[in-house]
Amino acid sequence: MTNVPIDLAGKFLSFSEHWSPKVVARLNDYEVKVVKLKGEFVWHTHDDTDELFLVIDGELTIQLRDGDVTLRPGQMFVVPRGVEHCPIADGEVHAVLIEPVGVVNTGSAGGTLTAAYDDSLA
Amino acid sequence: MTNVPIDLAGKFLSFSEHWSPKVVARLNDYEVKVVKLKGEFVWHTHDDTDELFLVIDGELTIQLRDGDVTLRPGQMFVVPRGVEHCPIADGEVHAVLIEPVGVVNTGSAGGTLTAAYDDSLA
Repeated sequence: MTNVPIDLAGKFLSFSEHWSPKVVARLNDYEVKVVKLKGEFVWHTHDDTDELFLVIDGELTIQLRDGDVTLRPGQMFVVPRGVEHCPIADGEVHAVLIEPVGVVNTGSAGGTLTAAYDDSLA
Repeated sequence: MTNVPIDLAGKFLSFSEHWSPKVVARLNDYEVKVVKLKGEFVWHTHDDTDELFLVIDGELTIQLRDGDVTLRPGQMFVVPRGVEHCPIADGEVHAVLIEPVGVVNTGSAGGTLTAAYDDSLA
């Protein structure tokens, strides 16, 4: 029986680390990821793709060079390809990311916050 | 100022008709759509693409030939390409669909429930 719902709340209960996106579903050559965010990430760019953020819990600010956007639960934003951005959250945020297979969380910036590919929740 | 959140609840407040997906965001060559569902749709297939359903409000059953899946708020399911399906909902459901640009709601089935392309909420 493979026809089971993907329960986002249940996925968020199953891990605690921040800045480590986990694949929960595949849509053609795209992936749906869940991620917990807290604190400030690094400024980075995805040169080849847009990136969708949907906030499920908490309040997330996506810092952008031309004006920040703050997302509350049920709100989303698409960072266009090539646009430098830096997520920041005072409290813990639960968010969904949707982007093509193979996108690395830190984009062109790299560094210590670069997460390994993790599809253990898929 | 283009850096504004896409507020799903607000989008759902802005229309009332059922089975008429409305584009609210673009992600590369994919579209994020909001749709209100009530009653039974038509059995249909998208031969060329997977289709993501995320339920925001209400309870949606996606009938599948090999076993139905029922989604509550915060739950999602990806119908694989080529898999015949038919959404059904007793009460009104608010859902998000994500799929490539150009996907028609009734897929290969056509018929009176086929919706015109609508990006008036984007």
